[in-house]
Amino acid sequence: MKVAVIMGSTSDLPKVEPAIQILKDYGVDVQVRCLSAHRAHAGLSAFMEEVNTNGTEVIITAAGMAAALPGVVASQTVLPVIGVPLSGATLDGMDALLSIVQMPSGIPVATVAINGSKNAAYLALQMMAVHHEQLKAKLLAFRQDNEKQAMKANQEIMEKYQ
Amino acid sequence: MKVAVIMGSTSDLPKVEPAIQILKDYGVDVQVRCLSAHRAHAGLSAFMEEVNTNGTEVIITAAGMAAALPGVVASQTVLPVIGVPLSGATLDGMDALLSIVQMPSGIPVATVAINGSKNAAYLALQMMAVHHEQLKAKLLAFRQDNEKQAMKANQEIMEKYQ
Amino acid sequence: MKVAVIMGSTSDLPKVEPAIQILKDYGVDVQVRCLSAHRAHAGLSAFMEEVNTNGTEVIITAAGMAAALPGVVASQTVLPVIGVPLSGATLDGMDALLSIVQMPSGIPVATVAINGSKNAAYLALQMMAVHHEQLKAKLLAFRQDNEKQAMKANQEIMEKYQ
Amino acid sequence: MKVAVIMGSTSDLPKVEPAIQILKDYGVDVQVRCLSAHRAHAGLSAFMEEVNTNGTEVIITAAGMAAALPGVVASQTVLPVIGVPLSGATLDGMDALLSIVQMPSGIPVATVAINGSKNAAYLALQMMAVHHEQLKAKLLAFRQDNEKQAMKANQEIMEKYQ
Amino acid sequence: MKVAVIMGSTSDLPKVEPAIQILKDYGVDVQVRCLSAHRAHAGLSAFMEEVNTNGTEVIITAAGMAAALPGVVASQTVLPVIGVPLSGATLDGMDALLSIVQMPSGIPVATVAINGSKNAAYLALQMMAVHHEQLKAKLLAFRQDNEKQAMKANQEIMEKYQ
Amino acid sequence: MKVAVIMGSTSDLPKVEPAIQILKDYGVDVQVRCLSAHRAHAGLSAFMEEVNTNGTEVIITAAGMAAALPGVVASQTVLPVIGVPLSGATLDGMDALLSIVQMPSGIPVATVAINGSKNAAYLALQMMAVHHEQLKAKLLAFRQDNEKQAMKANQEIMEKYQ
Amino acid sequence: MKVAVIMGSTSDLPKVEPAIQILKDYGVDVQVRCLSAHRAHAGLSAFMEEVNTNGTEVIITAAGMAAALPGVVASQTVLPVIGVPLSGATLDGMDALLSIVQMPSGIPVATVAINGSKNAAYLALQMMAVHHEQLKAKLLAFRQDNEKQAMKANQEIMEKYQ
Amino acid sequence: MKVAVIMGSTSDLPKVEPAIQILKDYGVDVQVRCLSAHRAHAGLSAFMEEVNTNGTEVIITAAGMAAALPGVVASQTVLPVIGVPLSGATLDGMDALLSIVQMPSGIPVATVAINGSKNAAYLALQMMAVHHEQLKAKLLAFRQDNEKQAMKANQEIMEKYQ
Repeated sequence: MKVAVIMGSTSDLPKVEPAIQILKDYGVDVQVRCLSAHRAHAGLSAFMEEVNTNGTEVIITAAGMAAALPGVVASQTVLPVIGVPLSGATLDGMDALLSIVQMPSGIPVATVAINGSKNAAYLALQMMAVHHEQLKAKLLAFRQDNEKQAMKANQEIMEKYQ
Repeated sequence: MKVAVIMGSTSDLPKVEPAIQILKDYGVDVQVRCLSAHRAHAGLSAFMEEVNTNGTEVIITAAGMAAALPGVVASQTVLPVIGVPLSGATLDGMDALLSIVQMPSGIPVATVAINGSKNAAYLALQMMAVHHEQLKAKLLAFRQDNEKQAMKANQEIMEKYQ
Repeated sequence: MKVAVIMGSTSDLPKVEPAIQILKDYGVDVQVRCLSAHRAHAGLSAFMEEVNTNGTEVIITAAGMAAALPGVVASQTVLPVIGVPLSGATLDGMDALLSIVQMPSGIPVATVAINGSKNAAYLALQMMAVHHEQLKAKLLAFRQDNEKQAMKANQEIMEKYQ
Repeated sequence: MKVAVIMGSTSDLPKVEPAIQILKDYGVDVQVRCLSAHRAHAGLSAFMEEVNTNGTEVIITAAGMAAALPGVVASQTVLPVIGVPLSGATLDGMDALLSIVQMPSGIPVATVAINGSKNAAYLALQMMAVHHEQLKAKLLAFRQDNEKQAMKANQEIMEKYQ
Repeated sequence: MKVAVIMGSTSDLPKVEPAIQILKDYGVDVQVRCLSAHRAHAGLSAFMEEVNTNGTEVIITAAGMAAALPGVVASQTVLPVIGVPLSGATLDGMDALLSIVQMPSGIPVATVAINGSKNAAYLALQMMAVHHEQLKAKLLAFRQDNEKQAMKANQEIMEKYQ
Repeated sequence: MKVAVIMGSTSDLPKVEPAIQILKDYGVDVQVRCLSAHRAHAGLSAFMEEVNTNGTEVIITAAGMAAALPGVVASQTVLPVIGVPLSGATLDGMDALLSIVQMPSGIPVATVAINGSKNAAYLALQMMAVHHEQLKAKLLAFRQDNEKQAMKANQEIMEKYQ
Repeated sequence: MKVAVIMGSTSDLPKVEPAIQILKDYGVDVQVRCLSAHRAHAGLSAFMEEVNTNGTEVIITAAGMAAALPGVVASQTVLPVIGVPLSGATLDGMDALLSIVQMPSGIPVATVAINGSKNAAYLALQMMAVHHEQLKAKLLAFRQDNEKQAMKANQEIMEKYQ
Repeated sequence: MKVAVIMGSTSDLPKVEPAIQILKDYGVDVQVRCLSAHRAHAGLSAFMEEVNTNGTEVIITAAGMAAALPGVVASQTVLPVIGVPLSGATLDGMDALLSIVQMPSGIPVATVAINGSKNAAYLALQMMAVHHEQLKAKLLAFRQDNEKQAMKANQEIMEKYQ
């Protein structure tokens, strides 16, 4: 299982890191790149050719402000592309959200929550799990574990207020 | 190839129809349902059990206003779930967009543009194409055709203003 | 008098706490739960069956981001459901507000201000007071006290600037 | 069962009418008034004294723009007050929504969707149903009927796309 | 010259203080009150009767969130009413701005910037200056002084970067 | 009594007209101008010198989009300046509202609702009424008449739904 | 004088046309292209190489929704790039505005108003006029003519209301 | 090469400084001024006459809140005017952005990102580079250097996650 993670700027790394960690925890071969759509045009195109032919199954992109990266990546592949809008100094990430989610017809970007890189990882895992039975089993176990923890937290809160 | 399309209300059908058509054009086995998260709770759960075990590869959901459907569907499956925010009578679909995209960690929804059901279809196709070589070829051809048409349109506009 | 308070995540507790305290101060039997609509589906349904039959009079729900909890709860009961939108890391709670207030016809959620859990408690009390004369008297006294304190504060400010 | 419905302007009537109709259909004694917080101050106060003592169980208010009516009504009663934000010529009702939902602590308004007067009626019915067994039964039947209709619509859509 | 300054809550005082100071500096007789439209209804009405007959020339009001105070004050007087939207814990004062500025026809509120209490004072002074020649002269001097200071600041910046 | 009404563009006239009519109905000497802050700089300055010395008591300004007119006018006078944000082809007047209301300290603009030219007129009348007893009497009568009409409308609606 | 005008879709033409017309009226050699950043990647790159070496002085770009075109163009040239955000079916062009204006440091896009293609043309003309004396004279004449027309319109309105 | 940089307030200096520094680094003759459109009207007009005749090639303006400065400057010149919206205490600079970018037809302002003064500098440089071959070469080198640094950062991140 192979996923590419592309961020637009090195300053995005702390917000992207959790996605990388989750993917690695699930045994995914993660290719991490920092390739701005605006500043590393050639490098991005070169990498896109690579991912299009090296067995990569999903591409995660993360960018802030006028976040063109996810759309530009999506326009160079028919692999599924996930976009993570990052909040910056102003506007709380609403600029990045609209720049990523409002894609024109024919070039979709699977957008997740503002700063939602964890969900980008889970979404990538779910896409791959359709054809990776073991991964599917792990995700189902993760969900069950989540539910167990949720019910345990509920139990604690319930007891606290009894 | 099997995709489920779930809308929240029959009034959503005209906006969801284009997704169904595209999927059918690509030879996908489409299961269309109208199952509101709020009004058809049991029916939705029953259908979710079905899609979780009948070989469905992607689920497309579409809803307006306080659009809980995509998230509720996503919470009952580890299949990838795509969410289409629909615009309603007020707020231009901003309510649906935020209700769909701002999912908590662990339960991702792949959100596309407001009223972007066509891209929901293409995104579903791209997810499946990773493991369906023929579909991948078709999508690459579609992209090339798009580009050809785009270049032809460019040629016409170029000539018009020469 | 019995009220259920359901939050979506344990991290919501500090913002929900004031509602619990107010309800307890008014002698209400408060059932506190942490049951995410997305992560504790079965647990939430089980609890909903409970509140629907154990004499609960009002349900308070609090959630942030794509806040599906209030609507999902509302869809499983004809008890009045109050929704408190919680602000998260971005967007100042506007996402939660629209996810909670923009409910489709037939499944209402009584929405209060962003982070307005205190008012959720008072609204619940007012709903119950219609049929609890003593509670009504207490609420009227609370209002009169509020007015008295307001007039006292006014007096102090008036004197300060004389 | 007695409900008061107060709108801010006669031009609001078409958007409030559905609430009145639903309440009447459920056998509720509806007191309809048009009393602007800004233009009919004394008339509103007089009516508030009336509803506070004549057995009214819920008050529904509807207003647009700088919608002060719901809050002003709420400040003069401990009956539960429902607020319906109405959209006007600009801003899609966002002004009314924020003017109604962002109430200060101690004076809650149960806010429903923009132009959501139907849900205001259902919310009022649900509040009353806690102490009116017959009404509760009717609301449960309404929900079941809604679900049946939803499942029937689903069946039709399912067959259409088979 | 007499101006009334009404805030909705004692917590608003730090944001209202600059207006009071400016008015006093100009020799205005300032009546400061803290009278919430929602919590001090009777006290507010009593004060409104007072200001309507005691020679008050302008009323400044300041409130946050669902800021009904300016409109309610405006509905009880034909004196000019200035409204200062205050920012609170969320939404940056956009809720207060819309609650104050979007007044229905016939009951105007002169709205200034979010947290713009200084300008509320200057606006009040300008209203009164139309019929107070000395005040007008002072305001013109203030403007000239402002311009002089602005030109001096310009000079410094100009020199700094020469 | 003398009021200046300045609009930014002739296309604004239909939205400004109601203000002119109201002012004339109250016997005000209205000076109407169309002087864009951006296109009629010199003409605007010339007119500002005129209004500053010809006994004008209030200036009403109306503009859309990046509505600089009210602020530019305000910066050239110590007469009270009212600003009417006009909605244009997009953004529902939110651009004009923020361009007008968010004035820096020292140069206030009394902002009314989007397209609220009627209230601009009433606000101007109220400002002048402080020193024009007859006008004050007329405005009080107008308010009483409004209230009478409001109560009559209420009566009709009350009877309709009895 | 040579300007390139690039739109993202043929459907943008009616909104871009006014810019082309103005440029032609001023004798500019206009190169019109329809080259989506997402659908005509190679064609756009080819055209960018052309404009970078054929004496083009300014590039005007226009796009809607997640408008990546202006930024992608800007990243492939050091010519000044103007971006026109176009409004689409929802969100009034706010998505395009934020996608265009919020560019990261080092790759600027000169953004004009939503649907403001006329101003894109005037901005391009002004940029070129710095080094084209005749064009500068024409633009100054245009401004003077605008002012004359503005003063004439003012005269008419002034007379109408005298 | 000569550029004018005008800010609206001395408090804007820290946000404008980076633009001045970049321009100086490129050997531009920078004229820095602090001339509010509202407070330094005459000073601004005087400076505008200066820049219109002293060989200035571009004007950069920066302002916050109801940011009239860029438009007012633009109305007094046919030199290209760049506007930098500055964020203030509330609204994250959205007020300044709309006040600057939504200019009426005929008077364009080249708007950059909120607090984007660096890009204002680069945009000014790019405008001048069209006729300054050496500057163009420097900018191309800057871009290449940016790309090199971007690729180096990419290399580091790539290695870190290998």
